[in-house]
Amino acid sequence: MNKPLAHGSVIGILGGGQLGRMLSVAASRLGYKTHIFEPTSNPPAGDVAFEITTAPYSNEEALERFAKSVDIITYEFENIPTGALDILERVRPIHPNRETLRVSQDRCVEKQFLNKIGLKTAPFADVSSLKELEAAVNDIGAPSILKTRRFGYDGKGQVRLTPESNLAETYEAIGEQLAVLEGFVSFIREVSVIGARNAAGDVACFDPGENVHKDGILDMTTVPAQISAAQRMDAVLLTAKIMNALEYVGVMGVELFVTGAGLIVNEIAPRVHNSGHWTQDGCAVDQFEQHIRAITGWPLGDGSRYCDVRMENLIGQDVGRVKMLAGEKNVALHLYGKAEIKAGRKMGHLNRILAKETG
Amino acid sequence: MNKPLAHGSVIGILGGGQLGRMLSVAASRLGYKTHIFEPTSNPPAGDVAFEITTAPYSNEEALERFAKSVDIITYEFENIPTGALDILERVRPIHPNRETLRVSQDRCVEKQFLNKIGLKTAPFADVSSLKELEAAVNDIGAPSILKTRRFGYDGKGQVRLTPESNLAETYEAIGEQLAVLEGFVSFIREVSVIGARNAAGDVACFDPGENVHKDGILDMTTVPAQISAAQRMDAVLLTAKIMNALEYVGVMGVELFVTGAGLIVNEIAPRVHNSGHWTQDGCAVDQFEQHIRAITGWPLGDGSRYCDVRMENLIGQDVGRVKMLAGEKNVALHLYGKAEIKAGRKMGHLNRILAKETG
Repeated sequence: MNKPLAHGSVIGILGGGQLGRMLSVAASRLGYKTHIFEPTSNPPAGDVAFEITTAPYSNEEALERFAKSVDIITYEFENIPTGALDILERVRPIHPNRETLRVSQDRCVEKQFLNKIGLKTAPFADVSSLKELEAAVNDIGAPSILKTRRFGYDGKGQVRLTPESNLAETYEAIGEQLAVLEGFVSFIREVSVIGARNAAGDVACFDPGENVHKDGILDMTTVPAQISAAQRMDAVLLTAKIMNALEYVGVMGVELFVTGAGLIVNEIAPRVHNSGHWTQDGCAVDQFEQHIRAITGWPLGDGSRYCDVRMENLIGQDVGRVKMLAGEKNVALHLYGKAEIKAGRKMGHLNRILAKETG
Repeated sequence: MNKPLAHGSVIGILGGGQLGRMLSVAASRLGYKTHIFEPTSNPPAGDVAFEITTAPYSNEEALERFAKSVDIITYEFENIPTGALDILERVRPIHPNRETLRVSQDRCVEKQFLNKIGLKTAPFADVSSLKELEAAVNDIGAPSILKTRRFGYDGKGQVRLTPESNLAETYEAIGEQLAVLEGFVSFIREVSVIGARNAAGDVACFDPGENVHKDGILDMTTVPAQISAAQRMDAVLLTAKIMNALEYVGVMGVELFVTGAGLIVNEIAPRVHNSGHWTQDGCAVDQFEQHIRAITGWPLGDGSRYCDVRMENLIGQDVGRVKMLAGEKNVALHLYGKAEIKAGRKMGHLNRILAKETG
């Protein structure tokens, strides 16, 4: 692409959650409008979108109308039904591409892909029956984690296995779905890299952030991560390797375990990522704008970090603290406009500016 | 107000230009939706608003429907017809208040108000006939500037007077409207303060920015301004004085001339201001969010500046440079989504991060 998508064009976004909301805001900074496709009503992204289509992914007519009304399509979540993609892709280009979705929608396929391009993952085994689970545990051992191959997020669809676990009960607990058993990785810390690649093949990565989870949900991301310069370089290079291998266009989140034996890829997300929210208040161009730039043919932006930041998620009742937090020094709030507070629901986040970079 | 306006509430904004657009984005960060009232179609703010009403300010039914659909009303420009305000104010509170609009809609009333509270302005005289213009020129001298009392912006509605000017022609040039003759102020630099005040009477000001105009339109604002600590303090204190005198609620822009004889108030704008756009990339809480906070009862946010910034307006054909600018280091782009490029039209701006503050 030599010229960016024209000013005033409409970007279609599949999914109307907080990621779609922040993508819409970023799109506006580049002069674009957004059209959100979302099955549930009153989605967070709807507050700042030019248009909303409320329809299930099975509504072919709505999908086709949506696709025709936009200039380009992207998404805020990876579990888009294949049938919907088939319809959309006939009408307008979708970024990131189908191959990426095929790989990232299935934990087993994803790990096979990562290993194939020479990257380390946790040891894993495909599990599609209790018998296979028993064989896998024999092979990989415990502690380990049984995860559904598809549709898992925020710790959902996974069960921890110990040497004492009853395997039949564990398999039942994840609904006897197609699953993968992952060996437990003893890691020093978890970091993630938010990378971007455009159609011209340019690659840019934000500084890796260090993640802390609570109850299976991301709690905080801090930049800079406490890793060495060599680890930082490794993390960035392997992210570029993944994006190049997939001929990826857009922003990708790559979660990594830092271990004594090097970096191990935990998972990849073919979209903007919660652990990249710090970029909103730490960089001239944030992950949301970087994604819009990548898919619309702009030069990738300057994502160099100009301060130390800690992003803190506001989960469920945490949101009750916002008035107090709002008065604190160096705190930037980002609420999602969700009406109902539920346990485990991401209601917003804040970026705490810790210190200014010099130089 | 003890509790902020509830999450998910709707803020009505009169005016759908770029200021309304950026106010909508800021409102979303605090969990609010916006509803834009704007006579022209496809307004920039419409891209990121929850709802748009397209109607003239003379449409009483539309005004009333708009007011009923929102929880609170604010505006992005000060020249709202009084009749419209009467209708709106019967239904919902408007911030900033009526008194502020009365004062700031008329250059003569504004200067009288400023003098009354002890602040310096350029020498001025009310002009409502050619005869009065002649008397005013005798009194104030030339060079001086003849400005319409109302509806002027971006250098529109003003004519420069020299000792050689033909007064009848000059008066005709501004349409023989009610006018004010302002003595020419020989200033060292122009700075502006973006201040905020909430209903509790709390006041917060952003660091003064230094403005450079081109063809009567703001071209650049740089922070920090090259002024002394004493001048900075004076600028902030007089801004607070203005806001307190008006029992102001919201963000206000105050343009000041720095002269050998101290600070002279050029004009006040009862709204977010072009010279405050740098705050988007230099502070944890920007002027747009500060305005939303002030009118909805949040604590005022931390507006301390954490880097040096230069804001550059993209006027008319300047927008053709954006692709190049987009690839530069430390540049944050903000485009307004305006379809048509016109000479003198504000198409967007950029914030150039110059250096990081330490400490």
